[in-house]
Amino acid sequence: MEKLTVKEIYRETEKYLNKDVKIEGWVRTLRSSKAFGFIEVNDGTFFKNIQIVFDENMENFKDICKLPISSSIVVEGKLDSTPEAKQPFEIKATNISVEGYSNNDYPLQKKRHSFEYLRTIAHLRPRSNTFSAVFRVRSLAAYAIHKFFQERGFVYVHTPIITASDAEGAGEMFRTTILDLENLPLDENKKVDFKEDFFGKETNLTVSGQLEAEAYALAFRNVYTFGPTFRAENSNTARHAAEFWMIEPEIAFADLKDDMNLAEDMMKYVISYCLENAREEMEFFNSFVDKGLFARLENVVNSDFGCITYTEAVDILKKSGESFDYPVEWGMDLQTEHERYITEKVFKKPVFVIDYPKDIKAFYMRLNDDEKTVAAMDLLVPGIGEIIGGSQREERLDVLERRMDEMGLDKEAYWWYLELRKYGGTKHAGYGLGFERAIMYITGMTNIRDVLPFPRTVNSAEF
Amino acid sequence: MEKLTVKEIYRETEKYLNKDVKIEGWVRTLRSSKAFGFIEVNDGTFFKNIQIVFDENMENFKDICKLPISSSIVVEGKLDSTPEAKQPFEIKATNISVEGYSNNDYPLQKKRHSFEYLRTIAHLRPRSNTFSAVFRVRSLAAYAIHKFFQERGFVYVHTPIITASDAEGAGEMFRTTILDLENLPLDENKKVDFKEDFFGKETNLTVSGQLEAEAYALAFRNVYTFGPTFRAENSNTARHAAEFWMIEPEIAFADLKDDMNLAEDMMKYVISYCLENAREEMEFFNSFVDKGLFARLENVVNSDFGCITYTEAVDILKKSGESFDYPVEWGMDLQTEHERYITEKVFKKPVFVIDYPKDIKAFYMRLNDDEKTVAAMDLLVPGIGEIIGGSQREERLDVLERRMDEMGLDKEAYWWYLELRKYGGTKHAGYGLGFERAIMYITGMTNIRDVLPFPRTVNSAEF
Repeated sequence: MEKLTVKEIYRETEKYLNKDVKIEGWVRTLRSSKAFGFIEVNDGTFFKNIQIVFDENMENFKDICKLPISSSIVVEGKLDSTPEAKQPFEIKATNISVEGYSNNDYPLQKKRHSFEYLRTIAHLRPRSNTFSAVFRVRSLAAYAIHKFFQERGFVYVHTPIITASDAEGAGEMFRTTILDLENLPLDENKKVDFKEDFFGKETNLTVSGQLEAEAYALAFRNVYTFGPTFRAENSNTARHAAEFWMIEPEIAFADLKDDMNLAEDMMKYVISYCLENAREEMEFFNSFVDKGLFARLENVVNSDFGCITYTEAVDILKKSGESFDYPVEWGMDLQTEHERYITEKVFKKPVFVIDYPKDIKAFYMRLNDDEKTVAAMDLLVPGIGEIIGGSQREERLDVLERRMDEMGLDKEAYWWYLELRKYGGTKHAGYGLGFERAIMYITGMTNIRDVLPFPRTVNSAEF
Repeated sequence: MEKLTVKEIYRETEKYLNKDVKIEGWVRTLRSSKAFGFIEVNDGTFFKNIQIVFDENMENFKDICKLPISSSIVVEGKLDSTPEAKQPFEIKATNISVEGYSNNDYPLQKKRHSFEYLRTIAHLRPRSNTFSAVFRVRSLAAYAIHKFFQERGFVYVHTPIITASDAEGAGEMFRTTILDLENLPLDENKKVDFKEDFFGKETNLTVSGQLEAEAYALAFRNVYTFGPTFRAENSNTARHAAEFWMIEPEIAFADLKDDMNLAEDMMKYVISYCLENAREEMEFFNSFVDKGLFARLENVVNSDFGCITYTEAVDILKKSGESFDYPVEWGMDLQTEHERYITEKVFKKPVFVIDYPKDIKAFYMRLNDDEKTVAAMDLLVPGIGEIIGGSQREERLDVLERRMDEMGLDKEAYWWYLELRKYGGTKHAGYGLGFERAIMYITGMTNIRDVLPFPRTVNSAEF
């Protein structure tokens, strides 16, 4: 008897219809009468369940009728088509054996649970419809990102997680240490002596792999990172996690326009991949999580993204007559309300805002000829605001050093980064995409805790 | 004029021969005479360089003759076939413009440098032959792993990096904290008060995502992790890094045999992918880094892996007549010398050793009926010894709890892990592959510092 996955049965039904089949999976629902019963089984390979019919001819009929939800079973039987029923087919069981009994107090009963409650059982929530959909889409989107870059010849670089530098020149970081906190070694000035620590110096968890990715772009031309990054920010919001994954491509012999083209192609590719390869999950999101989801995503896939300078955006916002919580002035950072107005009301599609004031952007962004703005770009999308931030990088050593001086950065600490400009620098650019933000956008989920398998946030590091 | 990559020119030469082309890249070598010159250009997209010929008809001929190594240039010209020369074609330049001049003190001159020296310029070493090959193969191998699992329907899970638990019940870990070490908060017992820390408790960097992956396997059936893991081990060897990447698949409704089959298929797939997709790089390794490489890898791809129990292996070793540094006794862990003897001398191919004594293995490994051994497996490969370690997991709640008690583990801390056995547990299995060990094996490189872009080891966290 052929051992199959539920996915195989759904995807190649014709092949298995009226044949004897064998599946393994978990009981999602069970109802029975005196003579027969129905089980919805999910085997984890597919979003949908498969229906099992069983009857009293089975030796262990009475035991099966009493099976608790979530028990794991092995089912043998014939795959029958059921043209008149809700589901297209069912397995008429000849044999059901129990692999593992579940307790009767299984926390995921049929009734709907709040997302808040499900976070407290993060080890079980991927067994629910919503979270099986979220985490399968997360997996597919991650693969789509690798596929997109690899098909284009990009080299995947694992930039370091533990770092002695701070890429942003800001940002609250987690310290990593092996020092005994109850018995800290002190130096002659009675300060903690980090020479005694594992790396012989102070180290933190990375906030970005960009600077290291630049070094690799100047060897391989096109590279990308995809790894965890960290912020020790005390922000208890639906959009902040202390640990999240980031994608950072970096491209050489490329300017801001090339950077925007890459970001646009990537976003369209990843969304299309999820729509094609997670059809059932995406339909579920569109029906039960965010009714406007398909319309929004199809708009992204089918639009030519817009482009506007920061200065133009500020003009539009000032003339809009809207009453924003944060009044707009040239020189200030755009708030989400401004970003959403631009992308939702003005463009009605994704739009790049470019050429931001240098004073609100990082030191490595390329200074424009006006000496007031830098070649930065933020991609704004309807429904969310900023989803990608990037820039052309400053490749001119003298300008870069001047900017670092202005911002009070220690050039010594960046010796190797500066050397990239000394030994055959080229124009180059890159951007960062927060992976969880992208998953929230693709699924319609609104809390970052619900797109991370085991989220780490202020006061929470369970599991 | 068509802008091309060097890879495109090598892969589709016929298409571009005798055409005008344009490339961008870095000068690897340059020699010139009074009337003409040659430049080897590498553009990062391909292992090999492309030869450029230029002559005095070019306006900036004299400037180009003086270009320092590693300068970045843009070349326009005609692609000529050169059937009598060493290289199959060259670009006869009509125009060469300089994108970025290099300094004359460029550290990677033509002469051979030691790997030790190149580690001190980790930002530049990917521009050398050896390291461009290593890090392109690393990228391709990473993709091959994703491709292998995704094509088989596995769900990629991002297990947490910061964790409050210790998967192995051992292992030296890095603490993560935001507490001010110069001013630590103390509780009523004068101990450090971790309630004041970011997560409200003590946290560390993960040593393994296995336990969390098990939770996901019991929802999705087949899952894998691929992420950074950490060991704060004070081991200054060629095989230890404090930060490295690990792949951990976990499969439900599966036993040790299924686990071994998966490991064998994966190893063959990844090696084949690198041999096919990094031909030039692999030939370089086989010629210049490890002359036995192809023979070794082809043996892995073409063998049916062997299988032997630990008890049989100990017998063979005791009867071998070899004088090992560590004498063999049943109950002790096998050393690399023993592993290599088994795989190189006895089997002459990869071999799984299974059913290890329970006392030298982790608590979560499934106890065999003999009550002395567990359903563990190590994959040994010629030239290196152990490359993969895995096991069937203990799915029986009572046995698992007994084992945890024996080993003095705090069951409370593992409440959610135990619940996986209460709510429809199934037999399941998994393994871990250290990604850097795999890359060392595939490339023939012998120091882990040379397969990590920016290695983190004792007293070293540069860049």
